[in-house]
Amino acid sequence: MARRSLLIDSALLGLPEFDTGSVWLVGAGPGDPGLLSALALHALAHADLVVYDALVDRRILRLARPGGALEDAGKRGGRPSPSQPDISARLIRLAQAGNRVLRLKGGDPCVFGRGGEEALALAAAGVPFRIVPGITAGIGGLAYAGIPVTHRETNSAVTFLTGHDSEGEVPGALDWDAIARGAPVLVLYMASRSLPNIVTRLLAGGRRPDEPVAIISKATTPRQQSDDPHPIGAGVDARRDRSCRDRCSDPLYHRHRRGRPAARRARLGRRARTTEARFLKPP
Amino acid sequence: MARRSLLIDSALLGLPEFDTGSVWLVGAGPGDPGLLSALALHALAHADLVVYDALVDRRILRLARPGGALEDAGKRGGRPSPSQPDISARLIRLAQAGNRVLRLKGGDPCVFGRGGEEALALAAAGVPFRIVPGITAGIGGLAYAGIPVTHRETNSAVTFLTGHDSEGEVPGALDWDAIARGAPVLVLYMASRSLPNIVTRLLAGGRRPDEPVAIISKATTPRQQSDDPHPIGAGVDARRDRSCRDRCSDPLYHRHRRGRPAARRARLGRRARTTEARFLKPP
Repeated sequence: MARRSLLIDSALLGLPEFDTGSVWLVGAGPGDPGLLSALALHALAHADLVVYDALVDRRILRLARPGGALEDAGKRGGRPSPSQPDISARLIRLAQAGNRVLRLKGGDPCVFGRGGEEALALAAAGVPFRIVPGITAGIGGLAYAGIPVTHRETNSAVTFLTGHDSEGEVPGALDWDAIARGAPVLVLYMASRSLPNIVTRLLAGGRRPDEPVAIISKATTPRQQSDDPHPIGAGVDARRDRSCRDRCSDPLYHRHRRGRPAARRARLGRRARTTEARFLKPP
Repeated sequence: MARRSLLIDSALLGLPEFDTGSVWLVGAGPGDPGLLSALALHALAHADLVVYDALVDRRILRLARPGGALEDAGKRGGRPSPSQPDISARLIRLAQAGNRVLRLKGGDPCVFGRGGEEALALAAAGVPFRIVPGITAGIGGLAYAGIPVTHRETNSAVTFLTGHDSEGEVPGALDWDAIARGAPVLVLYMASRSLPNIVTRLLAGGRRPDEPVAIISKATTPRQQSDDPHPIGAGVDARRDRSCRDRCSDPLYHRHRRGRPAARRARLGRRARTTEARFLKPP
């Protein structure tokens, strides 16, 4: 029987039981605990073990039930870390030992999150599992920075790309000319190291040098940083942009004095494509 | 002061106050109430009015607080419905009358959801607002159908497109040849009417006729339907595919007898790209 959760009323929401001996692959969203799904909160409240990756916000881990174990499966570029097969094998062992295993990943498990690989490994081992989607940073992070990822008069397509492939390089199998001429909005994940290289390819493929670019880090957290969009052709330096100024503890709640928004909107209106629709940054 | 919510412990999660006279533009996700975010549940528990669109699942509307008003702002293709400026004006009036206004949209408000337009209108009117991202169907619906939207060896890019532009036509401003040769995975929203037209353009642009396609409707709800992927070149008929068989009340929880998954995986492994990584459908 489900234990009583203090976080959320699972019965009222009709949430499914978290069975012993099963694994839930759950997206924790980009950072803000308020973006956790009901299923994610339910899983945190009932898991015997939480196997989390390095991108999961620490405020979220504090929501795990008292007595549940936390295990770091963090894998970040450059650092020694467990391999993907090691992590999958660990999930299988923990489930087969009769635990409710919560595999918690930043963002969405299936958007550049390797959730598919873990699901296949669990399926092959006969371990019951559930996938719980999460808010991906490419959508949620942009919204918190005041940039809608689509806008009716601006774009009817958006492409999400990872900045590196399984060898850590700029994805070579992609047709970069086609990417450059395809979706009007491109969202790059994990691209800080490869950004200059990617920009070169996009410009060579016909992307306009006056196209605006925004760089957002630590999206939806109190340490979120985003820059004012600037032309891609002006050069992109992720390190410089990351240190830019607008820190905002509650970035998506807009209070305005009358009159000011229209003025700011007019200014934004002079910019191109992705930023035409940029809402207003907090004052 | 926040009223006590039965659904969720807003204080424990540190959720922000839903102020009177403000509008929250909230994504309800694709259907499953378990995919609602903590902020969405919090907003449902405190809103004076919920202005919802036609794509919001009825089980979600039942979570609105007793005494709160529900208002249908539904706008679906073909039916007479309020215009976007009418809806924005209505939100502004309701907020200026001192209400906590929850604008609830299917999926994510900024993924083909016109959230940006409403945000700009609110900002121009000086109405405080917050955007709460939601799980978009193109990610959550695919996961529930057993298809990860990205997979490490399969794709490092995915493009989301709408099947019609602001005039209801196949988006003409897009470079369809570039779209066809760009991201290995394409996810089309609201494309049932324009699908044959889009397929023709993709094939003309060089998309391979043996590329598999899956059609998913009523994603993440008990009425979810999805077909087994079949080659795009074999012809695509959304109506036929929509009536296909596998109804599943809990589509994403996989229980398997030992041995079966590997066999099924081997079969899936013979298929191309997007389905290589398809997890297993419920038995």
